[in-house]
Amino acid sequence: MKRTARIGELTSQHAHESVTLQGWVTRRRDLGGLIFFELRDRSGTVQVQVDPASEAFAEADRLRAEYVVEVTGTYGLRPESQRKGGLADYEVLANTVTILNRAKTPPFELDKGADVAEDVRLRYRYLDLRRPEMQRNMMLRSRTWAAITQFMEGEGFINVETPLLTRSTPEGARDFLVPSRLNEGEFYALPQSPQLFKQLLMMAGYDRYYQLARCFRDEDLRADRQTDFTQLDMEMSFVDQEDVLELNSRLLAFLFREVLGRELELPLPRLTYQEAMDRYGSDKPDLRFGHPLVDVSALFAGGEFGAFASAEAVKVIAAPELTRKQIAELERIAKQHGAGGLAWLKRSGEGFTGGISKFVGEIAADLIHQTGVEDGGTLLFSAGSWKTAVEALGAVRLALRDLFGWTVGGADFAPLWVTDFPQLDLDPETGQWTYMHHPFTAPHPDDATLFGTERQTEIRAQAYDLVLNGFEIGGGSIRIHNPETQREMFRAIGLSDEEAADKFGFFLEALEYGTPPHGGCAWGFDRLVMVLSGADSIRDVIAFPKNNRGQDLMAGAPSPVAQAQLEELGINVQQ
Amino acid sequence: MKRTARIGELTSQHAHESVTLQGWVTRRRDLGGLIFFELRDRSGTVQVQVDPASEAFAEADRLRAEYVVEVTGTYGLRPESQRKGGLADYEVLANTVTILNRAKTPPFELDKGADVAEDVRLRYRYLDLRRPEMQRNMMLRSRTWAAITQFMEGEGFINVETPLLTRSTPEGARDFLVPSRLNEGEFYALPQSPQLFKQLLMMAGYDRYYQLARCFRDEDLRADRQTDFTQLDMEMSFVDQEDVLELNSRLLAFLFREVLGRELELPLPRLTYQEAMDRYGSDKPDLRFGHPLVDVSALFAGGEFGAFASAEAVKVIAAPELTRKQIAELERIAKQHGAGGLAWLKRSGEGFTGGISKFVGEIAADLIHQTGVEDGGTLLFSAGSWKTAVEALGAVRLALRDLFGWTVGGADFAPLWVTDFPQLDLDPETGQWTYMHHPFTAPHPDDATLFGTERQTEIRAQAYDLVLNGFEIGGGSIRIHNPETQREMFRAIGLSDEEAADKFGFFLEALEYGTPPHGGCAWGFDRLVMVLSGADSIRDVIAFPKNNRGQDLMAGAPSPVAQAQLEELGINVQQ
Repeated sequence: MKRTARIGELTSQHAHESVTLQGWVTRRRDLGGLIFFELRDRSGTVQVQVDPASEAFAEADRLRAEYVVEVTGTYGLRPESQRKGGLADYEVLANTVTILNRAKTPPFELDKGADVAEDVRLRYRYLDLRRPEMQRNMMLRSRTWAAITQFMEGEGFINVETPLLTRSTPEGARDFLVPSRLNEGEFYALPQSPQLFKQLLMMAGYDRYYQLARCFRDEDLRADRQTDFTQLDMEMSFVDQEDVLELNSRLLAFLFREVLGRELELPLPRLTYQEAMDRYGSDKPDLRFGHPLVDVSALFAGGEFGAFASAEAVKVIAAPELTRKQIAELERIAKQHGAGGLAWLKRSGEGFTGGISKFVGEIAADLIHQTGVEDGGTLLFSAGSWKTAVEALGAVRLALRDLFGWTVGGADFAPLWVTDFPQLDLDPETGQWTYMHHPFTAPHPDDATLFGTERQTEIRAQAYDLVLNGFEIGGGSIRIHNPETQREMFRAIGLSDEEAADKFGFFLEALEYGTPPHGGCAWGFDRLVMVLSGADSIRDVIAFPKNNRGQDLMAGAPSPVAQAQLEELGINVQQ
Repeated sequence: MKRTARIGELTSQHAHESVTLQGWVTRRRDLGGLIFFELRDRSGTVQVQVDPASEAFAEADRLRAEYVVEVTGTYGLRPESQRKGGLADYEVLANTVTILNRAKTPPFELDKGADVAEDVRLRYRYLDLRRPEMQRNMMLRSRTWAAITQFMEGEGFINVETPLLTRSTPEGARDFLVPSRLNEGEFYALPQSPQLFKQLLMMAGYDRYYQLARCFRDEDLRADRQTDFTQLDMEMSFVDQEDVLELNSRLLAFLFREVLGRELELPLPRLTYQEAMDRYGSDKPDLRFGHPLVDVSALFAGGEFGAFASAEAVKVIAAPELTRKQIAELERIAKQHGAGGLAWLKRSGEGFTGGISKFVGEIAADLIHQTGVEDGGTLLFSAGSWKTAVEALGAVRLALRDLFGWTVGGADFAPLWVTDFPQLDLDPETGQWTYMHHPFTAPHPDDATLFGTERQTEIRAQAYDLVLNGFEIGGGSIRIHNPETQREMFRAIGLSDEEAADKFGFFLEALEYGTPPHGGCAWGFDRLVMVLSGADSIRDVIAFPKNNRGQDLMAGAPSPVAQAQLEELGINVQQ
């Protein structure tokens, strides 16, 4: 027998028809001599009623939760008293029930899955994945994947798969290594990204490349990190930054339309890195709500509150009324992000009480005017170096969002571009220069002469991030296509020419053979799907994720292996 | 400046228009005071002519092969004497030429790429990939990928990514291992296929799954094997073998239409394993030409030629006239495939000369009749066990194909299904039973009771291969969905219940929780693209392949790594 439809395909047009359905049993109930159960497949659920007079009754009496069954019967309306409007008014009156497979009692009830310990959900992932919420996430992921493919193909991009067994280049994150049997003592690395390969494809004349690429970073795991993740990777030749931003903005709008059925207004808002940090204390600001940071350095400059008077920057954010306990918790967060403390004021009429109120008598009116704090509301300050001041208060801003539910009922999605990142970053502790985006990013043409000068910090990169609801969902840059600039960049981050040649020699050589101007972008696909689906964790949009110890609790990976396997690879486990 | 078109987009409609193009210089020639060069991009090439009177001339005079340039000029017809019809009659009369990047002299001439040593091509892959032939292959690959996505989406399949860091299960091929830093002394394995995960997805109710999945096998490499390869993986619930064959046949027809612009007649031909072996000596027969093996056991049975009279099978193939040297070479191939030798006859009129002619006097007419051998032609025989006889002569049949170009000018593509594979295979040397397809394949329902009996060899599997031009491009099976049958299968291949639980415990447990009937198929994507594109090697359809030592000669992988990296992973290289 074949099913005549998936459950979700049934409509009122099927009324009075005989249907055959296949799926899983949920919620069997015996009521007034009848057996009722819900039948579930990927597409939906339907109530099945089994008449005790029918031949199906004896078989139906054996059904338990999660049995796999085939049901044939008449699709029709439930008794009038049970109707509420909609498809739930329909049921199947079964005359045949066939058990296709039995099921042991599941270790947790599927409709309580979200409350079950995550370890148990991961251990029995094949059951967890039966929950409609997980199925919705996985189907949204699949639709997003297909929509990306459709868009990229329409724009003339060529899908190219790049190697997964490649060369270890210890820049950035830690590599996963794979011992080579055929080349003993040598190792492949799993790629952190296809960065070099996509640039090589531009050198090879492929013009527009994309790939939904698996990437690997051996880093400690968090809610939005996995050992391996999927990246929508793209690269374009003969383009400038505007071309990349325009195309990627259209891609985001296309995904909103195809996947969510929503329109997105273009062009997307933009902030420079400087603006984003200054106003929101973050290079991936959540713009679903306001509450920007306000610069009040000028109000405090030269004033009597010494710590503020001498600070490079004094930033303030206006919050609702806060308890002492709430302020203490927010201060803890500010300190975590480098602040020395979190000064505060409570507005009371046209003045302030509490915290640092004794210092603000003269500037109270200005503070109220500039921050718009409501009566009874709280002002929270951070002061210090500009970067510390904005970053600490930016973290406080997000904590306030979570505390007061500022995103609830507001705009669901607030995408923007952040541009003009710095090319280089100076670690104040080690005095070591490093790249901000990655070492292949092209500097702004006006700033390229600043390499190696004292104004190196001022070099702007042609780099950009796509931000959605406080998550960096994509980022990219125009790349260096000139071998000499590439060498200068390597030197700027402290790589000698010899070290650069050792690590990236083949790439530097390739740059010499006719490299077109090019640039691109990469999207964190898992994170994008997480934000689009409203999931709390990246693990809820990955079919078989690792836990935060990097373990697959279902398959039992990683695991010890036979000594013979290690012998063949020429490696030992250290004792 | 932006280009106004890609080169391949130019048509006669652009005549007299000003165009701006960007690409690579090939074949610069100076002729009669003019500079000519070809400009190449992904989409095509066009001739550019630079007038010495124009400002562009000085810049054009600096051009060398593989320089990246931007050209602006008028698109128009060449002088009448140079026209041959078609778009090659058009050229660009340049008034601006801008060098976007220079190029060193390439280590090989791109238009002689196919004749260059493969090591050199792989070392400078970014240059090799510029060759139009390679670009055609990569674009065909990308089109095939997109067409698969389109088809699978249209059929209601959900794309799910399965783990790349998973559990080592030393069945089948050798695993690539990945040491875990967070779980010292433990290893992930790179997946040989997503087999278990796709079955788990069926258990999880996903109904129809697909993925273009990267798979890894640490085996010695050949022309059609790589360390990692791409598999179109699919699985369907509530289906039988006919459903899988029907859908996959339509997929192949869809790919032929979308990628090659050709119609494929459905249903595809089918042979059972028994028929394929018997007629063609191969379970992946090349049906682009005939020359089947003919069974002449009956003619020789009880006859005077002892070796043939007592053989389980005597097979013969009719070939054109062959020299002694050719016969010797074919005999070498037959012996490689297990035959004791290769008996032969040359037809001469109504009789035979040479080889074993003294034994065939009485049956000459029958041999001519049954084989259809032409006058002057050769008959080649193998005898022995049925399997050895057909396999050896099957190899001879393919060698004859290559020798006589039997596929040239015939049907370009000859797809078929091979079905009814044996479930189990007995290694005659070790006496060890093993699976023919994989241990999750369901037996034919009529044969399931034969497990553990003397007739175990007779169990037919519900397994099938899709064969194209002598390559297995896909294969699959209906799976065992019953835990007890799965245990019986493990026992049949010599795994005790304890060993099975150790290796596949989580999977056996999952089978207990309501597993639907299911089955699927997996296609070798690289091999499919190789056959569709007519490439000789799988390496010609992979952007950055490994050589046959598993090395990426361009990036230099694998490579030694820093001792500190190994320390972090808790492993040592054996001295």
